[in-house]
Amino acid sequence: MRTRITNILMTPGVTDEAHIPFMDDAEILIDNGLIVYAGRREDAPAFEADETIDGKGALAMPGLCNMHTHTPMTLLRSIGSDLPLDRWLNEAIFPVEKHLTDEAVRAGTDLGIMEMLRFGTTSFNDMYMHMDMEAEAVRDSGMRALLGHGVVDFDESCADLLPNIALIEKWNHAADDRIRVALAPHSEGATTQKVLEKIRSAAETYQVPVHIHVSETKLDYDGSIKRRGLTPPQYLDQLGLLDYPVLAAHCVWFTDEDIELFARKGTVILHNPVSNLKLASGVAPIAKMLQAGCKVALGTDGVASNNNLNLWEEIKLMPMLQKGITLDPTVVSPAQTIAAATSVGAKALGYSHLGLLREGYLADLILLDLNGAHMSPCNDLESNLVYSAQGSDVRMTMVQGKVLYRDGEFTTLDPKLVVERARKQASLLFERAQAARNA
Amino acid sequence: MRTRITNILMTPGVTDEAHIPFMDDAEILIDNGLIVYAGRREDAPAFEADETIDGKGALAMPGLCNMHTHTPMTLLRSIGSDLPLDRWLNEAIFPVEKHLTDEAVRAGTDLGIMEMLRFGTTSFNDMYMHMDMEAEAVRDSGMRALLGHGVVDFDESCADLLPNIALIEKWNHAADDRIRVALAPHSEGATTQKVLEKIRSAAETYQVPVHIHVSETKLDYDGSIKRRGLTPPQYLDQLGLLDYPVLAAHCVWFTDEDIELFARKGTVILHNPVSNLKLASGVAPIAKMLQAGCKVALGTDGVASNNNLNLWEEIKLMPMLQKGITLDPTVVSPAQTIAAATSVGAKALGYSHLGLLREGYLADLILLDLNGAHMSPCNDLESNLVYSAQGSDVRMTMVQGKVLYRDGEFTTLDPKLVVERARKQASLLFERAQAARNA
Repeated sequence: MRTRITNILMTPGVTDEAHIPFMDDAEILIDNGLIVYAGRREDAPAFEADETIDGKGALAMPGLCNMHTHTPMTLLRSIGSDLPLDRWLNEAIFPVEKHLTDEAVRAGTDLGIMEMLRFGTTSFNDMYMHMDMEAEAVRDSGMRALLGHGVVDFDESCADLLPNIALIEKWNHAADDRIRVALAPHSEGATTQKVLEKIRSAAETYQVPVHIHVSETKLDYDGSIKRRGLTPPQYLDQLGLLDYPVLAAHCVWFTDEDIELFARKGTVILHNPVSNLKLASGVAPIAKMLQAGCKVALGTDGVASNNNLNLWEEIKLMPMLQKGITLDPTVVSPAQTIAAATSVGAKALGYSHLGLLREGYLADLILLDLNGAHMSPCNDLESNLVYSAQGSDVRMTMVQGKVLYRDGEFTTLDPKLVVERARKQASLLFERAQAARNA
Repeated sequence: MRTRITNILMTPGVTDEAHIPFMDDAEILIDNGLIVYAGRREDAPAFEADETIDGKGALAMPGLCNMHTHTPMTLLRSIGSDLPLDRWLNEAIFPVEKHLTDEAVRAGTDLGIMEMLRFGTTSFNDMYMHMDMEAEAVRDSGMRALLGHGVVDFDESCADLLPNIALIEKWNHAADDRIRVALAPHSEGATTQKVLEKIRSAAETYQVPVHIHVSETKLDYDGSIKRRGLTPPQYLDQLGLLDYPVLAAHCVWFTDEDIELFARKGTVILHNPVSNLKLASGVAPIAKMLQAGCKVALGTDGVASNNNLNLWEEIKLMPMLQKGITLDPTVVSPAQTIAAATSVGAKALGYSHLGLLREGYLADLILLDLNGAHMSPCNDLESNLVYSAQGSDVRMTMVQGKVLYRDGEFTTLDPKLVVERARKQASLLFERAQAARNA
């Protein structure tokens, strides 16, 4: 498939530039899932396209990477809202999750993927259960994902890591390499030392990243100090885990030493500002982390603590929350924010050529409408992009050269069917949970 | 005009209920701008409608009230983003605002009204300049607004309040009473005592509310303490102003005594969480304020510090920010939040029958689509409403019985023309400002 996207304003994306670069009257040429040209239209090479997409009035930019989520939790949307975290988990979430089935996970993943595509997310990093079902949903939808089987292990019963290894062997690099697999120990508090040591050695053997929750709540932090006199990052470091690629979700309760450690080790911080506020976990010191040179990528977390998968909300919240908390409006820039939503995550997923619109990169990109009243006038595009844009401005979402969403239509998913199936599976799930409660 | 809205899920809105009430299979009957019936469809009286709107799959709810904004600042969208407040005002905003014209204010107001209607706002509370132009835009658009001519007065030169009185005499209760007028001294720091005393006496004479910025920044608070040893609320109280209906914007830097004072006086707090974060002003202690019995209503503030007019962002941010800051997820409920976005503001605008869907109330309402992937499944509608919904879910916006927006179409505004005119006026405005800088 050869596609031309023309008549666009474009940003190739951003890595460490102070400002987001933009180019008008641009064109992108895509061959077999790869960008073969991205630049001025007048300089484009001759190219016979199977399809030409007129992007007039839109901005082409790298697709968003939702770097921490539990996609099937769409089925649990809004459950236990406004409960304290321990009651939220123990009374609302866990008693229901126990009754998940393959069908439920598949339905919830399809719904989540649909929602993400609609709001311009092209890849996500997930930790959950029934992961074969998630992998099949990713494969069939055309999306990109890094998938990990969550390990909760208080008694070393999971120390063999069998489901994790099986997932790696079956799915790593599957579906045209759109699927990658990670090891996913839940957190230092919910796994034994033995499991974490096995994880480290599996990361070495299989060369896959490790996805783990780190210091999400004060309880996590205090528990780790009490258990062994080390902060969670110090403990992970002592185990040698930080010498491997680690994707650390949340990182809310961090000391200056923790920040320095993660900066030095290149550990990627997965920041979930909506979820951290909503669950009353706190505010991660992202401004300090960026200043220390940490890698920061954005995520929504699961829907049950958000309650949606629209990463544009995180894009707006990340810089403004840091401004409001530090009382300094200069601390996080639009360029740092867009990098956190695109290129930093793309790299952390394990792809060397993803997250930028450049020749030789994978064609994961979106078109964002610029004509809404709320985007006009355009006095400062990077500021409009971060602070004015809506998820609903996404006109087109493309993964690996294939259009998956465009102008209200999905090419691989039937929206009515997906929503219906998710509603049905959610209601069956709550019925099973209720029956177990009554029993 | 007689309108039937049928086949809907409905909330009559919320005042001080613990949960938002919902009713399915409902119908609303509207005659000449007033709700004559809102309840179960099967119990609806006989009614000959000129138009019937099928609201299947949508929630009917009271329209949103944007209780603090400076609408024409749409023209200044994204200007000076990421500057500290003093430089933002002195280098970015003031040098441009000096060159505003009637045409610019009209164009900016039209754009802002269009954006608000699209996202379900049916009324707004505004303080700005060239207010005749704003009033004409409100009149022509069909929207509802409380308008105040902003008084900045460091030298008593504005002490005659002439533009304010003229605005009241010309526009209060105009356009079928859709327009109301307020007195709008900018803040205690930007007005002399003499002006504030005149304001108090004009509020008495004309029986209009007073709209004023109060303790937005630490600088405001410190300045007031330094000038006279009183916090801004204490000073306003000493002047006797709090015995009149006062709409106090921001209220970020508040002592417990300030909170108690506003609760006792019934002063309405206009909370702008996005703007307060973005300008690095801080976080208003809204949880405490609600607990003390204060009236809290939501606003976007001007676009230049937001950078849009989508009040759904404030709806989500208000409760989650309080949770994240207090580390208590129970502090602000969905019902309190929706009240802050609708009924509290509606009452503060000065209308006794606005902000609820009840017989005898003004027909300001919206239809919100419930079918999006991000709104499914609907395990908890009030939580979906506050945390999952998008401004783009608004399907229809009606003010005083007249449909102003529906399914992408505006009935009183030409979107292309409005956007074009705003772009042109913005660019002329910046040219004038630049020419003055060069001169």
